[in-house]
Amino acid sequence: MNKLLTFAFIGGDKRQLCAASQIADAGYHVRVFGLDKGEMSFKGKVSKSAAECVSGADIIVLPMPYTTNKSTVNAPLSNTSILLSEVTDSADKDAVIFAGKVDCVFEEMCRESGVKVVDYAAREELSVMNATPTAEGAIQVAMTNTPYTLRGSRCLVIGYGKIGKVLSAALKALGADVTASARKYSDLAWIKTNGLNGVQTAAIGEIADRFDIIFNTVPSLVLNFKVLSKTKPDVLIIDLASRPGGVDFDTADDLNRKVIWALSLPGKVAPRTAGGIIKDTLMNILEELGV
Amino acid sequence: MNKLLTFAFIGGDKRQLCAASQIADAGYHVRVFGLDKGEMSFKGKVSKSAAECVSGADIIVLPMPYTTNKSTVNAPLSNTSILLSEVTDSADKDAVIFAGKVDCVFEEMCRESGVKVVDYAAREELSVMNATPTAEGAIQVAMTNTPYTLRGSRCLVIGYGKIGKVLSAALKALGADVTASARKYSDLAWIKTNGLNGVQTAAIGEIADRFDIIFNTVPSLVLNFKVLSKTKPDVLIIDLASRPGGVDFDTADDLNRKVIWALSLPGKVAPRTAGGIIKDTLMNILEELGV
Amino acid sequence: MNKLLTFAFIGGDKRQLCAASQIADAGYHVRVFGLDKGEMSFKGKVSKSAAECVSGADIIVLPMPYTTNKSTVNAPLSNTSILLSEVTDSADKDAVIFAGKVDCVFEEMCRESGVKVVDYAAREELSVMNATPTAEGAIQVAMTNTPYTLRGSRCLVIGYGKIGKVLSAALKALGADVTASARKYSDLAWIKTNGLNGVQTAAIGEIADRFDIIFNTVPSLVLNFKVLSKTKPDVLIIDLASRPGGVDFDTADDLNRKVIWALSLPGKVAPRTAGGIIKDTLMNILEELGV
Amino acid sequence: MNKLLTFAFIGGDKRQLCAASQIADAGYHVRVFGLDKGEMSFKGKVSKSAAECVSGADIIVLPMPYTTNKSTVNAPLSNTSILLSEVTDSADKDAVIFAGKVDCVFEEMCRESGVKVVDYAAREELSVMNATPTAEGAIQVAMTNTPYTLRGSRCLVIGYGKIGKVLSAALKALGADVTASARKYSDLAWIKTNGLNGVQTAAIGEIADRFDIIFNTVPSLVLNFKVLSKTKPDVLIIDLASRPGGVDFDTADDLNRKVIWALSLPGKVAPRTAGGIIKDTLMNILEELGV
Repeated sequence: MNKLLTFAFIGGDKRQLCAASQIADAGYHVRVFGLDKGEMSFKGKVSKSAAECVSGADIIVLPMPYTTNKSTVNAPLSNTSILLSEVTDSADKDAVIFAGKVDCVFEEMCRESGVKVVDYAAREELSVMNATPTAEGAIQVAMTNTPYTLRGSRCLVIGYGKIGKVLSAALKALGADVTASARKYSDLAWIKTNGLNGVQTAAIGEIADRFDIIFNTVPSLVLNFKVLSKTKPDVLIIDLASRPGGVDFDTADDLNRKVIWALSLPGKVAPRTAGGIIKDTLMNILEELGV
Repeated sequence: MNKLLTFAFIGGDKRQLCAASQIADAGYHVRVFGLDKGEMSFKGKVSKSAAECVSGADIIVLPMPYTTNKSTVNAPLSNTSILLSEVTDSADKDAVIFAGKVDCVFEEMCRESGVKVVDYAAREELSVMNATPTAEGAIQVAMTNTPYTLRGSRCLVIGYGKIGKVLSAALKALGADVTASARKYSDLAWIKTNGLNGVQTAAIGEIADRFDIIFNTVPSLVLNFKVLSKTKPDVLIIDLASRPGGVDFDTADDLNRKVIWALSLPGKVAPRTAGGIIKDTLMNILEELGV
Repeated sequence: MNKLLTFAFIGGDKRQLCAASQIADAGYHVRVFGLDKGEMSFKGKVSKSAAECVSGADIIVLPMPYTTNKSTVNAPLSNTSILLSEVTDSADKDAVIFAGKVDCVFEEMCRESGVKVVDYAAREELSVMNATPTAEGAIQVAMTNTPYTLRGSRCLVIGYGKIGKVLSAALKALGADVTASARKYSDLAWIKTNGLNGVQTAAIGEIADRFDIIFNTVPSLVLNFKVLSKTKPDVLIIDLASRPGGVDFDTADDLNRKVIWALSLPGKVAPRTAGGIIKDTLMNILEELGV
Repeated sequence: MNKLLTFAFIGGDKRQLCAASQIADAGYHVRVFGLDKGEMSFKGKVSKSAAECVSGADIIVLPMPYTTNKSTVNAPLSNTSILLSEVTDSADKDAVIFAGKVDCVFEEMCRESGVKVVDYAAREELSVMNATPTAEGAIQVAMTNTPYTLRGSRCLVIGYGKIGKVLSAALKALGADVTASARKYSDLAWIKTNGLNGVQTAAIGEIADRFDIIFNTVPSLVLNFKVLSKTKPDVLIIDLASRPGGVDFDTADDLNRKVIWALSLPGKVAPRTAGGIIKDTLMNILEELGV
């Protein structure tokens, strides 16, 4: 791969700063803009404007998600608003923009500016790798909020997708008694193969009273009144599912169950690891593109 | 589920006998035919002919594969040949035939007889569950054929499908230093997440000299001259891939490399477990069919 | 065992309250005194004075350590001071006092009062069981104080006693790259057997620059200038050794190394588990005594 | 360490040949005698007599045990008998003899010849390291003699010494449901800490009917009539205890229980690993002696 590539990182949180820093450490030219409050020293260059940062760069990296308002770059560490159009307009014609959760609006903007855009948040390996900091974050939340050890505790992990797999394995490795739920027979076969207790997701209500901690990874309302009312009064529920979450929060509140909605854990508990994951994903894409 | 169902097992190896036996233990009516040399006592009934066995049965179970010659049932434990047509002709109209590796020839035969047929070998959970006896069989073969312990040995597992996943995890659990290969970035991310060393399958030649034992799970010629010639002279190669296998056997022979082609391990090393897997799969299908 | 035994818990922290509570849940009579600020409901009886609590009890339980000043019971959750002599004087002649870290002063006091005393802190199974909450506490401290995941991090665990064994295994289970140090060849053999990297404790200076996190379990000055000066500037050092600890704190400060001295973790991070461990230990002793 | 040391290996089985070979590979001078039927090529020198082999050597290595008849070297791979006195008489005065299971008879012989003798079989690290090939051998025996997988099988490991610890951990790692027995509360605490089910050795009779496979590591009669009569008729019992073993073999035979007495597994299933363990132990001793 061409070591002389220039990367421009615009906006994002600490993860982007960590990714930029690690790419600079790997010997590439790196410029950043819109990461002022990140409080980290790194080898690259801090640009004075988005236009200056982007201009002449081979690779432009926007965060995940690239925007929260469809007009400016998602830049929580910046005091300045950065217009998306400033980025696309200033980009070189043969530059590639990497952005997270790209929608048709942004695809259209890039097309008009004649710039290629790639959604790196859609990469399978990124979500596989992010399952680890999510699982460790969930474990940290569980440890901090319980008066007992995970070893010997009874945990239910709802859903056996990427996060469910990594989290169940980590809990089991720490000595918890872990039950994982899934809908498909083949996932239940994996659960058994991996040494966990298995249960149909539809049947968790029947055994909900057995668990000290319930982790949810399914983004639909699985922890409804029927299930919540069966849980132990001192259960700890940790919801890892993105909006709208998997817990009927009002009912949980009425029943006085402790629920922690833990979102975006990789950036919070392990920004350096999360930045490295972004870096690795970008490098994989560049290798595939032959850049 | 209806406890009064009657199962008829026709042909197959010890696995079928174990499955039949476990289904009888679970309280169903079970008849068998074509399993004479199986040397196992079981609660069910041994029929005098295929026709007698099949007639009146709700569920007819043929082995995996159901035939090896397109005319008779695959029945290595029987001295009699059992015509496929005898089975389909004698089956009740509302019976279901479960058979492994069903092709269009047999589908057509069943359609003509008006009997429903289901290919249970195509079930995802069956192949997930079978990965465990395959992996243990591979470990047993490795232990038997090496003068050193698996703990501390350097193992390469080629391919990260079902068998690759389960085998790598078991080897690592026993303390081997395990590298797994895959083609996709997302599989390589899983490999790393699961604590293994990863390598692109295309690049195994470059590091083939590091390994004491190489397990292949990929059914295409990955262990060709280029790779084989790089391996240690005292390497042990265990090929788990079905025909035509993944090793250039002639070249391996010329290079004096020890290769063991270990096929159909579940039935050989753990027929009782393999029979239980067949039983569980049939029960899942019946539950889905609402029988 | 006689279910009608009466236990009197005097002083201590949340662990004692949890132990008392679990013993009450097991059906014994339990009274407590000097645990007022513990904020926990439990089935037993809260006595009005130490004398009332102790009088007529079969088993009297003081905390670990039983005192910090040689005259009153160690009772951080109480507003009242409780004289040791009040306890020994009020105890029935056939009562047994269980106390932690009993010294000859207290042995003498008990002898004078004609009461049997047992040091439960000296029980081997108690320190084995306590290694788990200590290890989980150390992991929680590490997770909270690092911007990366434990998976993939390089950890050194100094000392391969009870805590060293359990902590190394837990870190490895979470996917860290763990090196453990010991002095004896046989411990180094265990370290290798358990799948860890091993190093002589005397030689840790030579490789100290490899580690992201260093956990010390040895209660002598192992992390001296020579070793500290070799560590990474952003290393995290977690000292689990009791006073005087194993780190030259002044030098670490001069070198700007981050050190966390994490003492008494079981009571802090997992009082319910720690209380259960006390309960189990008391029950083992009672079984041995034939009470 | 002085690289010019000369080692003389006299007698023993494949393990000694492997140890000699690995020491030669490490750059030392190595001579062997009495290993003729070992069928292995190695870099060192094959001497023509014990006297020639020993004469001038710095380190003389006899096997474990060094003799089986108190007069000749234990040399199952040799056609010649080698008198112990030939070895001690031919040894240089400043040579060190390493021998396994040294008794006072041999100590006296060495003293008379003015030669130092060290019993390497008494080294703690040797028995720790040997637990791994013993455990893997036991697993291989279990796999070969059962029609089911270890994953999901119910195993009892009697005794929680070195072999018990390593074997239980390996079985659990492979997915078996493992119960370990011990006498001491502290060992039972370790068993629980290590994620196993625990039982008092004295109480195994009460639960003996639960197990598919029973491994014994205790060298006293624990599997007596009372326990054996409670086991499943198709249980597999693997006795790893040295003579007289831990099974009442006659009773087991009467009850038609399958018992395999698996002795000296390291040399049988993993001579190369076992040889490496001997080599490592010798090197540790030399380092301690300052040779």
